[in-house]
Amino acid sequence: MTKPSYTALAASLPASVPFVSPDTQQRLRGEPYRARLGANENGFGPSPNAIKAMADAAPECWMYGDELSFALRQALAEKFHISLDNIVVGEGIDSLLGNLVRLLVEKDTPVVTSIGAYPTFNYHVAGFGGKLHAVPYKNDHEDLEGLAEIANKTAASLVYLANPDNPMGTWHTGTAIMEFVDQLPDGCLLCLDEAYIEFAPEGISPEIDVNDQRIIRFRTFSKAHGLAGARIGYGIAHTELISAFNKVRNHFGVNRIGQAAALAALADDEWLDQTIAKVTRAKAIIADIARDNGLTALPSASNFVAIDLGRDGEFSRKVVEYCDQKGIFIRRPFASPQDRCLRVSAGPDAELQLFAEVLPQALRAC
Amino acid sequence: MTKPSYTALAASLPASVPFVSPDTQQRLRGEPYRARLGANENGFGPSPNAIKAMADAAPECWMYGDELSFALRQALAEKFHISLDNIVVGEGIDSLLGNLVRLLVEKDTPVVTSIGAYPTFNYHVAGFGGKLHAVPYKNDHEDLEGLAEIANKTAASLVYLANPDNPMGTWHTGTAIMEFVDQLPDGCLLCLDEAYIEFAPEGISPEIDVNDQRIIRFRTFSKAHGLAGARIGYGIAHTELISAFNKVRNHFGVNRIGQAAALAALADDEWLDQTIAKVTRAKAIIADIARDNGLTALPSASNFVAIDLGRDGEFSRKVVEYCDQKGIFIRRPFASPQDRCLRVSAGPDAELQLFAEVLPQALRAC
Repeated sequence: MTKPSYTALAASLPASVPFVSPDTQQRLRGEPYRARLGANENGFGPSPNAIKAMADAAPECWMYGDELSFALRQALAEKFHISLDNIVVGEGIDSLLGNLVRLLVEKDTPVVTSIGAYPTFNYHVAGFGGKLHAVPYKNDHEDLEGLAEIANKTAASLVYLANPDNPMGTWHTGTAIMEFVDQLPDGCLLCLDEAYIEFAPEGISPEIDVNDQRIIRFRTFSKAHGLAGARIGYGIAHTELISAFNKVRNHFGVNRIGQAAALAALADDEWLDQTIAKVTRAKAIIADIARDNGLTALPSASNFVAIDLGRDGEFSRKVVEYCDQKGIFIRRPFASPQDRCLRVSAGPDAELQLFAEVLPQALRAC
Repeated sequence: MTKPSYTALAASLPASVPFVSPDTQQRLRGEPYRARLGANENGFGPSPNAIKAMADAAPECWMYGDELSFALRQALAEKFHISLDNIVVGEGIDSLLGNLVRLLVEKDTPVVTSIGAYPTFNYHVAGFGGKLHAVPYKNDHEDLEGLAEIANKTAASLVYLANPDNPMGTWHTGTAIMEFVDQLPDGCLLCLDEAYIEFAPEGISPEIDVNDQRIIRFRTFSKAHGLAGARIGYGIAHTELISAFNKVRNHFGVNRIGQAAALAALADDEWLDQTIAKVTRAKAIIADIARDNGLTALPSASNFVAIDLGRDGEFSRKVVEYCDQKGIFIRRPFASPQDRCLRVSAGPDAELQLFAEVLPQALRAC
């Protein structure tokens, strides 16, 4: 039996998954987590209106969704005072990252990111044969100066920046980001991942200017809106770039129930405000837990907190593992020296209480 | 403001959508269709168990789905007596087609399909720079001999075949398809789209042999299971090919509610049997409507019927348009000479009744 004729690029790629999901981890450990605080999911849940919209949409699921996500894009356009043509909706930011990379990256195209930043971006760059240049963090912040320097040195086509940052929760101001963009070489696009922006204080997101062809920003319903499982992300950019997604995207990839859920969630400002307040409170609790154990919590503009364990990555790995065995799902950054930290997602009190109980045991045992 | 640096391929592609959705068509006409019979959706709807599973999963949507679709793949593996490692789940067959093409097709890779077959496949081939060779239908069937001939002549890497065929509803036997595979050149993969297979009689699908590296088959929950909006398709093939999807797929692209819905639908054989019976009955009604208007309905192994209008594509276009204006959504094949037909999806009696009323008016008016 003859084998399929893979492309040289496909043959060269590893079969890899950027992340193992909490569901998979649970299955492998044989029982559910008592506290699910490791994937920056939003344990406060989606708006009841979104839940109702999903239940209402269920019997209508025999119909294909709207390949244009028209109603959702219309609502987003109104919210941001831009045109529908400045917005693309996709199956989570992950999908949009893949399409963006596909539009800009081919064999050996130089691309810049930070060491230990979002691995799914790296996965897509590798998947299209790009050459990734990664810059170390500086004081637990993505290093704008360092990123711009390498982008110029390599004449990069694409730079990835998450603001607020994941996995550290740190941030730059919108002003600093626009100064950064000014320093990028001609024809270099900033991919600004704003997955956590709803949790950030004012002034962290550069003002939206869809005439600026140097930036695309990605946002999502997975975090503040509590709809990670619905798979709805969106991109905001110049019409020309947004239109280019129609060259490569899976037009019917977005599910009908997710579209209904996102639309309902977007209209429920009150729930969003409550969620942000709950997350702020939960982050303070996590910081208290850290302090009670003689540890430092990094300030965070996201829905998670990095707790500095003050030791090496081997130690944090053991602490994460210990917590896992006790039913507490948390994670830690992938790369050194950020991997000296734990990364704990904001969640309901009961789950944080369990973390508060297990953490001191873990610190003693590891 | 500098523009992004698109790849040469991306710059050369048109921003196109293979299909305009019924939802978009409805929006553009300003009111809902009275009969939605044009997209081969399943108007008999999903299993009540699937609807309940979706409603139950809605509050859990704050959690990411399982990137492995483990439970669903396990259930499918049991059903087909194969391993989980022979199954990949994706955001509809469309998504899996895109990933398959990406694995096998690069600039100028020869690929073979039929003229007027599934346009989304063509979209993906163009999107990765492949060179598509298209063979005419023969007596309203995809022409296996012609496809094999061109595949050999061009040393194609990939051949697309839908069985049962869309848009004609015709079919080949499993035996004929395996003889066809034997005639393909070394290293040529058959992409066998079995989206409609549940509606087909016995003997139409080649026996599943996952040791055979020359075939991948795609199936879906969009048609017989009535879950088009949930976006759950799957591929069955040799473990090596299935594993290769993990090199390129959007691991978290499948939504959590869709996973729950598909699992529940798969377990409800009784609903599936009822659906198939309803579809069989509806197809007979459509054939009766054709006959009552002096027209011929083609035999169909799918959930739709091609009605031969016996004239040219311009006439059928007018008939489709007339029906559309009267609130009856139907379609017709894209390519000549198949475009002499209407394509009408099986649906509830009330909708077929409306079609029965409007068709004779359309035939008179056009």
